Formats: sequence, structure tokens, C-alpha cells
Amino acid sequence: MSMLTSLSGYPEWLPEDQLVVQQVTELIRRKFELFGFAPIETRVVEPLSTLLAKGETDKEIYLLRRLQAAGDDDGDDKRVGLHFDLTVPLARYVLENRRQLEFPFRRYQIQKAWRGETPGSGRYREFLQADIDIIEGQHRSVSADVEIIQAVSEVMAALPIPPVRLHVNNRKLLEGFCLGLGIERITQTLRILDKLAKIGEQEVLGQLAAQVSLPREAATQCLALAGISGTSAAEVAGAVTALGVAHPLLDEGLDELASVLLACEGQAAAPVMADLSIVRGLDYYTGTVCETKFVQFPRYPTVAAGGRYDNLVADSAVSLPGVGMSIGITRILGLVLHEGLLRGSRKTPSCVLVALVSDERRGQSLGIARRLRARGIACEVYPRPVRYGQQIQYADRKGIPFVWFPPESGEGDGQVRDLRSKAQVSADEDIWVPPAEDLSARVIADGQALERVLATSPYR
Amino acid sequence: MSMLTSLSGYPEWLPEDQLVVQQVTELIRRKFELFGFAPIETRVVEPLSTLLAKGETDKEIYLLRRLQAAGDDDGDDKRVGLHFDLTVPLARYVLENRRQLEFPFRRYQIQKAWRGETPGSGRYREFLQADIDIIEGQHRSVSADVEIIQAVSEVMAALPIPPVRLHVNNRKLLEGFCLGLGIERITQTLRILDKLAKIGEQEVLGQLAAQVSLPREAATQCLALAGISGTSAAEVAGAVTALGVAHPLLDEGLDELASVLLACEGQAAAPVMADLSIVRGLDYYTGTVCETKFVQFPRYPTVAAGGRYDNLVADSAVSLPGVGMSIGITRILGLVLHEGLLRGSRKTPSCVLVALVSDERRGQSLGIARRLRARGIACEVYPRPVRYGQQIQYADRKGIPFVWFPPESGEGDGQVRDLRSKAQVSADEDIWVPPAEDLSARVIADGQALERVLATSPYR
Repeated sequence: MSMLTSLSGYPEWLPEDQLVVQQVTELIRRKFELFGFAPIETRVVEPLSTLLAKGETDKEIYLLRRLQAAGDDDGDDKRVGLHFDLTVPLARYVLENRRQLEFPFRRYQIQKAWRGETPGSGRYREFLQADIDIIEGQHRSVSADVEIIQAVSEVMAALPIPPVRLHVNNRKLLEGFCLGLGIERITQTLRILDKLAKIGEQEVLGQLAAQVSLPREAATQCLALAGISGTSAAEVAGAVTALGVAHPLLDEGLDELASVLLACEGQAAAPVMADLSIVRGLDYYTGTVCETKFVQFPRYPTVAAGGRYDNLVADSAVSLPGVGMSIGITRILGLVLHEGLLRGSRKTPSCVLVALVSDERRGQSLGIARRLRARGIACEVYPRPVRYGQQIQYADRKGIPFVWFPPESGEGDGQVRDLRSKAQVSADEDIWVPPAEDLSARVIADGQALERVLATSPYR
Repeated sequence: MSMLTSLSGYPEWLPEDQLVVQQVTELIRRKFELFGFAPIETRVVEPLSTLLAKGETDKEIYLLRRLQAAGDDDGDDKRVGLHFDLTVPLARYVLENRRQLEFPFRRYQIQKAWRGETPGSGRYREFLQADIDIIEGQHRSVSADVEIIQAVSEVMAALPIPPVRLHVNNRKLLEGFCLGLGIERITQTLRILDKLAKIGEQEVLGQLAAQVSLPREAATQCLALAGISGTSAAEVAGAVTALGVAHPLLDEGLDELASVLLACEGQAAAPVMADLSIVRGLDYYTGTVCETKFVQFPRYPTVAAGGRYDNLVADSAVSLPGVGMSIGITRILGLVLHEGLLRGSRKTPSCVLVALVSDERRGQSLGIARRLRARGIACEVYPRPVRYGQQIQYADRKGIPFVWFPPESGEGDGQVRDLRSKAQVSADEDIWVPPAEDLSARVIADGQALERVLATSPYR
């Protein structure tokens, strides 16, 4: 409802929305831990050489420089920049610490990342990501791909957000198909195909002809491949085979894709489908690739993505294959909170406002608060001894459900008022408990807002 | 035990230590929420003009620049830098959003901050802070100071770390004392006094004479004031009065300090004492100031600090007084984890490793894992069908307490083995529960390590 952006691309939230961000993040964390992923955090900066080692991301990096540094004369090897994802830092961390880690290394990482992109819908310069990855030892297996995709599918289904679908493809399948067609400039071909959703078939055909000199027939075959999608491994394989292109790498990719589809068939989580138009831009993917979209908002950018990278975690001594996905928390909540689909039930964790009778009796109110807190009930004391009406208004504006009035005599039970029902009863601060649903701020879904958004959203 | 610093000043941790960082952070968060502080996060960057508006911190700021930006010609008004604390961003956030916030605004904020300082013991370039602040409306009250100090005292006492003590002073007391002595260059005088612990009495006397031309007698009086400490409000006031200096601002500061001491007397949390040598460097403090130290490691830097700032949250339209403190999570855990005082009970959240019989029966192991997870038991499936001994070794190295063997026939109950007792029993994955203390990774305190550190630490 209330994204605050006084600096373009850097979202901030009001407390009632931050409570939602926090609960969603905590839910993701708990799910990741249930799957046996261990937490790490990496520093936010990496040497520029690490950031530039893979992929085509050089335009997006923020470099750091100390305000008082002597000039701008740091060599490239000394320059550091903010990480633009959590995968490149993971690769560096694993290589540095590989003697102290157990493999397969299963880690999750929930941190911000930064890209100097032009801000737009769902595109931020600062954003929170939640990643899981499995870095295998020597033994590479598609079962890790399956596990990552199933975990993300389950996590996404557990979040209080509109339904999503995972679109899976395989880079070997794409590259094998190109090889089978005799295409030489595969990377460039795939980069053009990756723009299909954005620029459309005619423009892709045009670029394939102009930029990689692809014969019309091969280009049409590529488009036909990209048009294949479905949840049945057999049907997808049949559709690919029907195109009449053959190559061992294509078969390998198709087998891996089938493994993922078969494992996810009929599972009680977010649906997983093959979508052979998925390429993923980053250069380091080598097998399974996956993009997750809101089913009802297909034009909103991808909200979770990733894939297999068999050459990223590598130096002169070792090469450790890995696979992982990243959930874009800011991107998801950017839509969900901006459109008011979710909101916090109140603006504070406080369940109780303890009223203040007078400055002299502040100790009494503080004592009541202390005893409530000792039993896990979040509360605050109103700071000034103004009339009760004003203290109640404050609680009401913050959505605090209960106000506690200390005993008038200074001894015995006080009174607690439910601000919604106006019911007021005597209560002992060592015994009273609020209804379970009032104990903490909750995330509330607004069904009417979803109806409205479905009717009017530009992302339909 | 294992701080990883391939880039100086940027600490990273192994998973077993990150679990400690996370649990300590979560404990602080829960305590802050019990006190009715609401969460916010601010973007990590602020305009340079905001960062430089207050205080003497210009040497420490990291500026950002896009790698592909056209030259270095951004004007000062366009330049942004990483925040060096969470108080200056809070002030900016509150001013920007004041129409949507309720006052007093009670917020907590747990985020990293960055300073381009020379790294040293407990001094990092990237560090995690946990702040609470109360931004008052028009009505300023020392009861907010009391509340912040009591909250931090309770939080620190609840953490599984060596005991700490809060050292409290008041800037009005210091400034009033200087005014009473007829000192004109008060800021510079206090800045020199602030170095007392570092450089000693003789050097302070010398600098007070050389740099602010303070007469010997006034300088000696300042040192006498800085030597006063204690937990009794009456005794501290008596000691100050005995110095024979008088000024209304001194009395005001002494009254506020007394309020804090009286409120904290006899509370069951970390002790709070007056320590009139405390100045706090940052220019924005105007009343109560506080520094928290490890009692047994007085030479280790301050682990939590803050105070009152009545002019920081101000623009041409409003000025909102506030008070807050910041807990240095990285600094605390820098000592605690580095010395091995705490460690995680295992290297992963996994409570159970589900063994894999064969590739064909992978679905069976995945099904067992799914059912354990459905009941909140974190687990992972071993990825390859190697001999059980090897699978058990993997669990053992990661500290996973239980290994689950699927039924040999493929049906019926499996067996679960406790790797510590070697006891192995039949178990149904829909019923079996681990002992409560094994469900999640725990933080374990190592008493022997504390003995060793107390005997050898340079911070004694």
C-alpha cells in the first residue's frame, strides 16, 4: 500500500508493511531450514574481478570508494563493488572455505543485493533475495536440480501470495538443439531467443537473420522449440522429437528436464511446467534453468529464478558443480504490498498499551508492562499522564487491540479494555492472556484488493 | 572460532557460527518487539548531504558509483554513500514519513552499516547493528531515556554472552560543568576528555592546556568530574556538588542522570552505573549518553551505545526530540565467536539425514523426508546410494543427530539411529519425534573457553 521511495529504486516500507516483509522472510527461512539448508551471509562487497569474472553484468555494478580516499587511483585489483546477486558471492565463499565445509554444501542466504539498473515495475536498485543452493562435491546429479525446484515450489505455495508457476527448461536441451541445427553462434542465438516474450516472434526472426545470419528454416525451428510447453514429460519429449532435430546434448537435456517434471508431477505445491522459451540471461547456467511467474500476472517480471551452474564454483584447483534458485522477496512484495493484497494487522508488535495515571505512578505502569512481557505479551506504556481518551486514541491509531488501566487505588487488579468490542473487564497482569490471534501482529490478506487488481492490473 | 576475513574488516562466518549470529539476532528482535518497538528497514544508501549533515564522520563514508557511469562528475547533491549508523537514516525516514507515523514513534532496526575505518580488534568495515529508538512528538521526557536504557539492559542480560555493564552520563551535566567553570570551547574540551581512557590523565591535561588554553585548575576539575562513578544517584550527586561548580544546565543534567539511576536501581538485568567519563564522540547527542562494556573485558571496545538527540530529527518545519541505543552484534560476536565462547550445536538445521538405498528408491527417501518436514522436523536426503557407513559419516561430520534408514523391504517402518548413543530403533515417520533439544540447532556456551579467555585475553 505504501512503498516509500524518496530515492528512485530504493524501496522502504512503513512499519505495518515491514511486519509483512518480516513474516514472509521468516516463513521462507523456516521452510529453507526444514529442507536442511544452512544459513550463511556474505559481506556485501566483492572484488571487482570476482564480480566481473562471469556473465554480462558489468553495467549494473555499484563500485565503492572512501570519501576521503586519495584520488581515484585504486587499481582494478583493489576495487570492490556491491554484489548484484548472491550466487557469485557464494561461489567465492565456497572456494575460499572449501576445506572447512561439508559437501554437498546446502546453504540458504537471505540478503539484499544491488544493481544500478533503471528502476521500473518490479525492478529495484536495492532488493532482498532469498537463495538456496546445493554445491555438490565431485558427484553431479540431477536429483539436486529436482530438490531445489521442489523446495522453491513448496516455499512459494506456502506464502500468502497469489499463485505462481515454475517454468523449467534446460540449457543443454537448447544448446543441443542449436548444435543439431548446425548453429555456430549459440550464445548469441540464445540471447536473441531470450527476448521472445518482450519483442515477439517477428522481431526475433529478424534479429536471428540480421545478427547471427541464421537461415530462415533454422530460425523457425528455434521458435517452434520455444513454443513447446507442458507438464507431461512424455508429451514435451514427443513435441521436441517431432521437430526432427537430433543431438546427444539435446537428448541429455531432455532427460534432465524429464526427471524434473516426473518428480514434480502431482505434488501438492506450486505447479511446475516445462517451458522451452526459458533461457535465463546470466552466462553461468549449464543445465536446468527455471523462472517463476505469478499465474495471474504473466507480464510482471519473474519472482524466483535460477538453475544449474557446473563451472561457476571453480578455480585452478577444483571445479564444484552446483544448482540453486533465488526468490525475489522485494519483487514479490513490491506487487503484493503496493496493491494492498496483504497488510499487517497493526502498526506495532504491541498487544497492550498500559495507560499512565500520573507521573508519580509511572512505576506502577512500568511494573504491569514488565509482568506482561515476562509472559511473552508485547506491550508499551503511554508516555504522558494525559486523559484516558487521548491514550486510547493513540492505541487505536496504532491498531493496539488492548488498553490496560492500572487499579485506581494503586493496588489490586486493573481493567483491560478490548478496543474493538469496547468490552472492559478486571484483570490480573500475572494471569490475563490475550486471544492467540491478537498476541502478535498478523499478516492479513485482502480478497477485495485482489479482485480489484485482477480487474485493472497492467500485468494481466 | 572461525571468522573468515579474506577482505580485511569484512567478517564472514561458517554455518555453525552463522546459526549463533542468527539466534542471537532473533533473541534481540523478540525482546525489542516485547517492548513494543516496531520494525523498519531503511535503504543502505543516503545522499551524501544527509550523511554529512551532522557529526564528524566524513572520513568514514563509502561513496557509491556505477561502474559504467559517465565519469566522476556527479555533483555533491547527487552523490550517495553507505550509511555509517542507523540513527541518521532513521532521522531522514521519520522526517520524510512523519505524516504517516504515530508519535511517539518506537522503532527497532537490525541492519548492517559500513565505515571505511582501519580494521582492528572489534572494529569492522561492515558490521551488524540492532537499534531501538523513541522519536517523541512535541513532548520530550527523560522517561524515554529510562525506557531505552532499561530495554537494552534487559536485552543484554538475556543474551548468552559474558556480563556487561551500562555506563551512563549526561551531556548537559558535562556542558553545564564546563559553563560553570567558564570554559568557552566546550565541544573541543569534551572531545579531548573523551580520549581519557585511551591517552591517560597527563596527556589529557597537556592537550587541554595546549589546544583549548584551559587553566590548570579548570582542567583538574574536569578530570575530577570524569573520575566520578557509581550506582547511587545521591552519592554521584554529592560527589559532583563537592567539586563546587554550579550552573543550571549542570543541575538539569544531574537530575536526568539521577532519574535513570533511580529507575534502574535493583532491576534484574545488566547493571547500570553513572560514569562521568563517558562523552560519546558523535556531535548529535544532547542529554543522556550511554556506553556498554563487557565487565570482564574493559579494554574491548563498547558493545552497545547511544543517547538522546534533541536536534537530529529536524528540518525547517519540525524538530522531534529522540533517544536511542545501538547494540553492536558483530562486535559482540566478534569476541564471543572468535574466542569460542559460543558455538552452534551442529553445522546445519537438519535434525535427520534420510539415507538413500538406491537410485530407484530415491522416491521413498524423499517421501520420508516430506512427512518428517510436514511435522516440523528439518531433514535432508543423502544424495547418492553409497554404503551406509559413508552416509553416516557425512551426518556425523555435520553434527546431524539422527540417520533414518528406509525399510529394507520398501514397506513398513524404517529404523532411526541416534549417532551419539548408537541406539537404533524402528520408527514411523508420521509419529517419531526427536527429543526437544535436538529439534533445532542450539547455541552452546563453552565454559572452559571463557576460563581460558579470562586468563589470557588482552582485553582484561
